[in-house]
Amino acid sequence: MALTRRELVQTLGVTGGFGWLGAPLSIAAQNGHGGEDDRTVHLSGDGLALPPHVYTALLDQLTRSAGVDQDVYLLGGEIERFERRWATLLGKETAVFMPSGTLANHLALRALAGTRRRVIVPETSHVYNDTGDACQTLSGLTLIPLASGAATFTREEVEAVLARTGSGRVATEVGAMLIESPVRRLSGRMFDWDEAKRITAFARERGIGTHLDGARLFIASAYTGISPAEYAAPFDTVYISLWKYFNSGIGAILAGPKRVLDGMFHVRRMFGGNLAAGWPAALVAGHYLDGFVDRLKTAVRLSEDFYRTIASHPKVAIERIPNGTNLARLTLKTVDAKQVVARLAARGVRMPAPAARGAVTLGVNESWNRTTAADLARAFEQAIG
Amino acid sequence: MALTRRELVQTLGVTGGFGWLGAPLSIAAQNGHGGEDDRTVHLSGDGLALPPHVYTALLDQLTRSAGVDQDVYLLGGEIERFERRWATLLGKETAVFMPSGTLANHLALRALAGTRRRVIVPETSHVYNDTGDACQTLSGLTLIPLASGAATFTREEVEAVLARTGSGRVATEVGAMLIESPVRRLSGRMFDWDEAKRITAFARERGIGTHLDGARLFIASAYTGISPAEYAAPFDTVYISLWKYFNSGIGAILAGPKRVLDGMFHVRRMFGGNLAAGWPAALVAGHYLDGFVDRLKTAVRLSEDFYRTIASHPKVAIERIPNGTNLARLTLKTVDAKQVVARLAARGVRMPAPAARGAVTLGVNESWNRTTAADLARAFEQAIG
Amino acid sequence: MALTRRELVQTLGVTGGFGWLGAPLSIAAQNGHGGEDDRTVHLSGDGLALPPHVYTALLDQLTRSAGVDQDVYLLGGEIERFERRWATLLGKETAVFMPSGTLANHLALRALAGTRRRVIVPETSHVYNDTGDACQTLSGLTLIPLASGAATFTREEVEAVLARTGSGRVATEVGAMLIESPVRRLSGRMFDWDEAKRITAFARERGIGTHLDGARLFIASAYTGISPAEYAAPFDTVYISLWKYFNSGIGAILAGPKRVLDGMFHVRRMFGGNLAAGWPAALVAGHYLDGFVDRLKTAVRLSEDFYRTIASHPKVAIERIPNGTNLARLTLKTVDAKQVVARLAARGVRMPAPAARGAVTLGVNESWNRTTAADLARAFEQAIG
Amino acid sequence: MALTRRELVQTLGVTGGFGWLGAPLSIAAQNGHGGEDDRTVHLSGDGLALPPHVYTALLDQLTRSAGVDQDVYLLGGEIERFERRWATLLGKETAVFMPSGTLANHLALRALAGTRRRVIVPETSHVYNDTGDACQTLSGLTLIPLASGAATFTREEVEAVLARTGSGRVATEVGAMLIESPVRRLSGRMFDWDEAKRITAFARERGIGTHLDGARLFIASAYTGISPAEYAAPFDTVYISLWKYFNSGIGAILAGPKRVLDGMFHVRRMFGGNLAAGWPAALVAGHYLDGFVDRLKTAVRLSEDFYRTIASHPKVAIERIPNGTNLARLTLKTVDAKQVVARLAARGVRMPAPAARGAVTLGVNESWNRTTAADLARAFEQAIG
Repeated sequence: MALTRRELVQTLGVTGGFGWLGAPLSIAAQNGHGGEDDRTVHLSGDGLALPPHVYTALLDQLTRSAGVDQDVYLLGGEIERFERRWATLLGKETAVFMPSGTLANHLALRALAGTRRRVIVPETSHVYNDTGDACQTLSGLTLIPLASGAATFTREEVEAVLARTGSGRVATEVGAMLIESPVRRLSGRMFDWDEAKRITAFARERGIGTHLDGARLFIASAYTGISPAEYAAPFDTVYISLWKYFNSGIGAILAGPKRVLDGMFHVRRMFGGNLAAGWPAALVAGHYLDGFVDRLKTAVRLSEDFYRTIASHPKVAIERIPNGTNLARLTLKTVDAKQVVARLAARGVRMPAPAARGAVTLGVNESWNRTTAADLARAFEQAIG
Repeated sequence: MALTRRELVQTLGVTGGFGWLGAPLSIAAQNGHGGEDDRTVHLSGDGLALPPHVYTALLDQLTRSAGVDQDVYLLGGEIERFERRWATLLGKETAVFMPSGTLANHLALRALAGTRRRVIVPETSHVYNDTGDACQTLSGLTLIPLASGAATFTREEVEAVLARTGSGRVATEVGAMLIESPVRRLSGRMFDWDEAKRITAFARERGIGTHLDGARLFIASAYTGISPAEYAAPFDTVYISLWKYFNSGIGAILAGPKRVLDGMFHVRRMFGGNLAAGWPAALVAGHYLDGFVDRLKTAVRLSEDFYRTIASHPKVAIERIPNGTNLARLTLKTVDAKQVVARLAARGVRMPAPAARGAVTLGVNESWNRTTAADLARAFEQAIG
Repeated sequence: MALTRRELVQTLGVTGGFGWLGAPLSIAAQNGHGGEDDRTVHLSGDGLALPPHVYTALLDQLTRSAGVDQDVYLLGGEIERFERRWATLLGKETAVFMPSGTLANHLALRALAGTRRRVIVPETSHVYNDTGDACQTLSGLTLIPLASGAATFTREEVEAVLARTGSGRVATEVGAMLIESPVRRLSGRMFDWDEAKRITAFARERGIGTHLDGARLFIASAYTGISPAEYAAPFDTVYISLWKYFNSGIGAILAGPKRVLDGMFHVRRMFGGNLAAGWPAALVAGHYLDGFVDRLKTAVRLSEDFYRTIASHPKVAIERIPNGTNLARLTLKTVDAKQVVARLAARGVRMPAPAARGAVTLGVNESWNRTTAADLARAFEQAIG
Repeated sequence: MALTRRELVQTLGVTGGFGWLGAPLSIAAQNGHGGEDDRTVHLSGDGLALPPHVYTALLDQLTRSAGVDQDVYLLGGEIERFERRWATLLGKETAVFMPSGTLANHLALRALAGTRRRVIVPETSHVYNDTGDACQTLSGLTLIPLASGAATFTREEVEAVLARTGSGRVATEVGAMLIESPVRRLSGRMFDWDEAKRITAFARERGIGTHLDGARLFIASAYTGISPAEYAAPFDTVYISLWKYFNSGIGAILAGPKRVLDGMFHVRRMFGGNLAAGWPAALVAGHYLDGFVDRLKTAVRLSEDFYRTIASHPKVAIERIPNGTNLARLTLKTVDAKQVVARLAARGVRMPAPAARGAVTLGVNESWNRTTAADLARAFEQAIG
């Protein structure tokens, strides 16, 4: 029923859901380690799509310049230092490194719910759709989906769930609630921030734990000006991806209170998430974390200028996502799209091949800073011909 | 959050959801073993509300007249004979006695789903609301609720679940689907029968197991003329309650194919459902099973006559449930409801005390055959005064 | 791998592990409701092996004479009164009626362990061998078996488990410990009482919950003079079977502290153990509970006299179980065993047909009081010829 | 109860259970990236204990020289190529990359067992002791421990488990069996090879899946001359660690038949093991895999010469492990152990600080090839003085 192995690889390679892996595999392969330098502008993806040799050169340089205090099974050393840095940055008591966001979200909900097994989640969320029902199968949680097809659910919907739960003939309890923002399945749309504050306040009153799947939270911050710590404040726990735009290849951070996260390294290991060494991810993600939001803000301004310019082109349409973030839909009308892609590539601008009818999802990321709005618009105009 | 022990007892005693326990506890207590004979007409409940001494006298008589072949942990003897009778009656290969409907539904879904862990259920169903999330907590199933607030979901809704399941990044599969009809939480409303046939045919094509929670299925048959076997035919498995209107105090039947149910007595025992002896329930339920639908049809005709007559009374309103079964709502307007209840009781007619604003849920059951429509209408007219 | 349905019925019918079902099915069938009165002496089984019509007549009589306050799904009424009686009798704060001992043991361990998932059990225990791994499969507990083949494990063995648990690379904790006494799989042998007190004291120090599977505890009391309450005192929770020798057909009692058992009716229902009505079991078990230990003590004295007498018979050997209870092994040497069984039956004494080599397991129960040691010895001598 | 975070870090750093992390943290820290070059001889640990800068330089070099085909969530690219190489090497149909051995073992047993939930494991195994009861808690498996305190269990012990399982009152089945060899908790002792062949043949007859925890299997091969493929042949599945002696920092390989492993990437993701990129581990482990067994054989011969020489020293005792592999126990008698460690370090030979009474566990690994037996013996003699 789900995607096959081959379909998964193809899909994942072109949906812009990646960081340094953002480029379709075929491109990565055709360029190899020497064919692409770090001046390339990637018009899709959330991160820099570092080619392998650029990644390894950076890792080697960071290792030599800083000295490295190795971790042991993700305990101690660089990882501990990195976790402390994240806790401070997000305004939480502590933070735990996780090998994947899938595990970070799962263990947060597992811990927050405890013996109260119902968990409210958005119907469009990653946890509800893309984890093989991990929370249900491995932790026996009952996920209750809200807001069918939408980014935001409301306090009233939450209250209805509590009322129905309370009317059951056997006691069950809602132990946790998840909000995802931005939402990958809705092209980066954000959960309404005011509603999020209302809902989390209500949850706190009722003793319900709250978790923010903020995989791409720093991207939201670049658009809204609300800092990651501000976003994290109303939630008990928050997860941030390390590889989608901090380019570390693996890893995730889960931050929150000590009462929830102390001892979680045991659960991480029980799930098999006990990587023997995590310091390389900490070094690279830590490197890109410095000043990220500011750099992305610059890229955002540049992209807005570019969109404004190019939108007036008669053969181009730009569609923005309401309450969205870094994704936009560009359509090439009556144009040989393949040729456009090839001409852009020749100028160091990578764009995914448009699907039928010339539509392609663009993603603003740090690599946009390698050009200017004017240069980019000019490259497009010339490529379209 | 859920009801306390005391609230549960009170609620369960007056909601008309019972068979021989249908009468509120306080009434049962005040009448004791001698105060109520089996001429009482119970205007609520699905069954006969047998007083304890009537039940034990009947059990003793059945035991003496028929001879009893004891079962051993629900294996062999009367139970095996009873299971065979049910299999025949429902047109299934085999049937298994269960101590409760909660267990029957759970084990059916557990077996049908197997390693495909998603199960489609009505949002208003007993399984989804009143079992403490047993399927999720104990069997790791993911219940996917459809048809919010309604009795019937559609083939299109089912297809949408399959589509979303197929789009996930990790393979999951829908293994089973439950339909409940009539629906207790919707006052006995039935699932649309044509849609049920469409959906089960579609499920069969897709290899998805189907289960019918037909706790009150025989009541539906008395209203629609569709036999229990006809209702059961499109489903893999079907559950019928034994105590709600067959007055046996405990028990449920789960019928279906041998590939699903053979060996299920092991699972029943693993769950602790291995009653040491089940023959008393088989004797009593078997007694009332004989000719039940015909007797209830008689009561239904009587009740329809009664409703028609009494509905024209200026102080009475009757509200029927669309596509419903044996429940109806009677409202006494500008009347001293307590006095009416007392006057009816004096004439051997038990009616629950109306809630605020004089409304009460009536339930047609076999005990209505102890009167006539005319007598019942007359009793009401005089009681209302 | 495990026994088939047919084998189970056959085995269960003759192992003497039953109460009122203790007689092999074939005998029960051949006698029917009229062929066996309540003067029969059952030389095997733990209970009275009430024929169905005797049971139903008793139930009817108890219902009429006492008046019955019905329970609703095992809440309120006779069941609540019965639970209070048991709590007092066992010296515990509260007690909960369970449909089966399988469920009582499981829910006790589940509750005591909580999130500390390791549970120490005897390797010969019912929970470890005869429940389909219910605790492991449904509650995710890790049962750690001790005392291979023996009735008693030691404090040192418990300490070794704690040490190994403490040395693991991922934190796990021992949350509960089970002791079974007498042990069914060891012919009624008892756990060493002094060691039980040492171990439970040690467990208490370490915060480990303790549960006593005392299915046949009242039988032990008749042999040791230690009262059920005295046995129960060092444990958090204790389970007693209701049907094995209190002849109620179904049911079990789980007694313990409110912090463990309050709210357990919710879990009972989640597991499907929510029988709609439990009062018949409460009436019958309550009837036999009155004075049980004293009556069994009388039967024990009688049996000891009988064993002493018959052991000197040249064609009879009696083998006692070290630290055992009501079971003993009788061997008929160079005798036509079938004929002996038939001759005894003609005198109202039921004995199971010996297996190969003339050996049979005798079980002392209340029905022995229907004869005297002298009469019984004489019946044997004459039957042996 | 289990080790605290701090204790874990300390313990893991000095037990010699590591590869490139083998050096105690304090030493790694004090040397930093420049203080230790790759001429150091590590007398403990299974791998090379690569300092971070050596690891990153190697990774960078491998990336540049070979070209890299990136994987996407461990699918395709270098990972797929690496998996194919392993399948060939181990004589299995297919292989799957796993982030950790903990996950590899767990998912193998989960898949082999399927719905037959009992799994036989050695009582001293990693799975039974060091995974937080992952199989039990997350997959509901019942692990049955055999061979208390020993490396090898026997076919007779397995048969006894099957017999007891078959005698239970509820059907359960043994679905899988694990053998670990060499055994970490027994200082590298191996499972008796002839018994392993007998047991796996018996398991195959009975349809029981077999898994080999061969984390350090290549070390065994260097000692016995039995190739990894030969070891793997009698088992359905086999796991090999990638970081312990192939120095890759993370990762494990699980090899076996397609019927078991196809589709396992879905389960890997459900558990959160979906690293976004795995190619760095594939490159480094692949590098050291070439010719590993031969290089370790050389080191083994060297170590045997060294042990023979030094054993005659009056102040040294060498204790070998019966049926062991690369671990041995060296005791310094009446010597200032700290001084010896310091003097060896000055000559580029790292030895862990002996515990009380001068005992230390040595581990033969590739780094021994950086010296000769004669030089090493001389270094010791001079260090002891």
